[in-house]
Amino acid sequence: MSVDLNKAYPAGQIAIREVGLRDGLQLTKVWPDTAQKRAWVAQEAAAGMRYFEVGSFLPADKVPRFADVRDVIDEVAAQGAHGVALALNQRGATDALATGVDEITVVISASAAHNEANVRRTQDQSLSEMAAVAQLRADSGKSTILNAGIAMAFGCSLSGDVAEDDVMRIVDRCLEAGVDMVGLADSVGYGGPKQVARLARRMEERLNGDPWVLHLHDTRGLGLANAAAALDAGCRVFDASLAGLGGCPFAPGATGNVVTEDLVFLAETMGFDTGIDLPRLIETRALLNQALAGEALHGALAKAGTPNLQRWL
Amino acid sequence: MSVDLNKAYPAGQIAIREVGLRDGLQLTKVWPDTAQKRAWVAQEAAAGMRYFEVGSFLPADKVPRFADVRDVIDEVAAQGAHGVALALNQRGATDALATGVDEITVVISASAAHNEANVRRTQDQSLSEMAAVAQLRADSGKSTILNAGIAMAFGCSLSGDVAEDDVMRIVDRCLEAGVDMVGLADSVGYGGPKQVARLARRMEERLNGDPWVLHLHDTRGLGLANAAAALDAGCRVFDASLAGLGGCPFAPGATGNVVTEDLVFLAETMGFDTGIDLPRLIETRALLNQALAGEALHGALAKAGTPNLQRWL
Repeated sequence: MSVDLNKAYPAGQIAIREVGLRDGLQLTKVWPDTAQKRAWVAQEAAAGMRYFEVGSFLPADKVPRFADVRDVIDEVAAQGAHGVALALNQRGATDALATGVDEITVVISASAAHNEANVRRTQDQSLSEMAAVAQLRADSGKSTILNAGIAMAFGCSLSGDVAEDDVMRIVDRCLEAGVDMVGLADSVGYGGPKQVARLARRMEERLNGDPWVLHLHDTRGLGLANAAAALDAGCRVFDASLAGLGGCPFAPGATGNVVTEDLVFLAETMGFDTGIDLPRLIETRALLNQALAGEALHGALAKAGTPNLQRWL
Repeated sequence: MSVDLNKAYPAGQIAIREVGLRDGLQLTKVWPDTAQKRAWVAQEAAAGMRYFEVGSFLPADKVPRFADVRDVIDEVAAQGAHGVALALNQRGATDALATGVDEITVVISASAAHNEANVRRTQDQSLSEMAAVAQLRADSGKSTILNAGIAMAFGCSLSGDVAEDDVMRIVDRCLEAGVDMVGLADSVGYGGPKQVARLARRMEERLNGDPWVLHLHDTRGLGLANAAAALDAGCRVFDASLAGLGGCPFAPGATGNVVTEDLVFLAETMGFDTGIDLPRLIETRALLNQALAGEALHGALAKAGTPNLQRWL
């Protein structure tokens, strides 16, 4: 395998990935234009953000909010940061591989019912498609990272409890299908810290030091408690969105992804160096106020400010 | 000592204390009338809440929101729950001891600067007043619990870092002054989970199995992550307020106490039995919408609902 995960995600470093430009915009009524997206990337990169989920490779006429995904990829590259794009099938992956994007995320659900409702495929069909995408990547000769995002890994709004053994079985099958990396998503905020710690320890053991992604939503308020548990268990790659953009289709009005700035604050209080300048990161929110007029911005730290403790002086 | 802490706070049980009626109303522009306060207590008690902070014994003409503290104490007693009242000096304690309230909280700050700014006393003077209150309690012949709430125990908005050794020294001095129990308060939401875990372990060791109170604010978003760390470290008594009522005088618009219903959800996901019926607890918020028109209600679970997992079905 020509893919070096540890180059993109160095051991011993916490990687917080800004997913506001993709997951965060999935449900908003309005979205930033291309210039605003570029400014968002540039400003957040200047605050130290090194990873951006840039959009999804979908038919531009059907999903216009991601029509400019190539421009965002270019801006991320211009900032020297790492870009991640979603591709839901071979067509999307082909388009993504034609760009310089650093990583492609394909998705599957740990819940059979949700997988069928969400992408109208059985889990077996999704795994076959994933294998086909891995073949496309191999054929391309590129070292683009292939990551499988596993939705509903901590419980499913359609089918309820998801057994941890079933999650780990899907992890195995994704790796067998040829992806380099996997991510566990608490898509609806069902997880609690003990459950997250258990699965995080199993992931650390299974992946033997290689990175994996934890994608937490704060739908039910436990996002940061779960992140703390995962940090304790050794997880080092986390998705988050500025101002907690990204709601939940199953819970109108609910909060979305864990808030990037609050997650950075959490990690720093725990002694991890995120490489991110918190006050500058918070300033980036002003841009969202303009570009997303009317959308609720979440996040506690932005309202209260960083503490006057030695660490932040 | 005639005070049996383990009767009020049984070993092996998590005690979540509703402080919305006192700390939660400290800064609101409006407050519930007496009938609404009684209904709040009755409805939340029916959902399983067993502890209520009822108000503060202050001059009624100066602080009218707590003028009906005796009525709230009566309602809490009528519900068979445990009532806690604040008393800031000997006069307040004398008034409190004349009622049937189960517990009196006196306050001191772990930060010398904040203590002087907040109550215009040195820490030594506060400790002397505390000893005088303990003497009043002894003279009364009552078994009312005396608890010392230690503010700014995780950092101070005036003086910054507060050394953990200094916090533990104040704990010792409060116990020497004759209180039965102490509480640590993260008054401005400066703490992080590792710091909370360290202090919680020191408290568990110092108090040798006796209960102590953790009073967390969610000002900077880490309230529940800190609660999870404390639960792991053995803490069993937590303050919280319905809908996260209670802001922060130093951060306008910021969130207040940790949200009772979200804390209950956290504890239950971690396998602790709180004795509280979450859907019924959430219904109690409707009463706040009426009684506190215009005040922001916080809390993620109320927006998203309890998950369709076995535990909550």
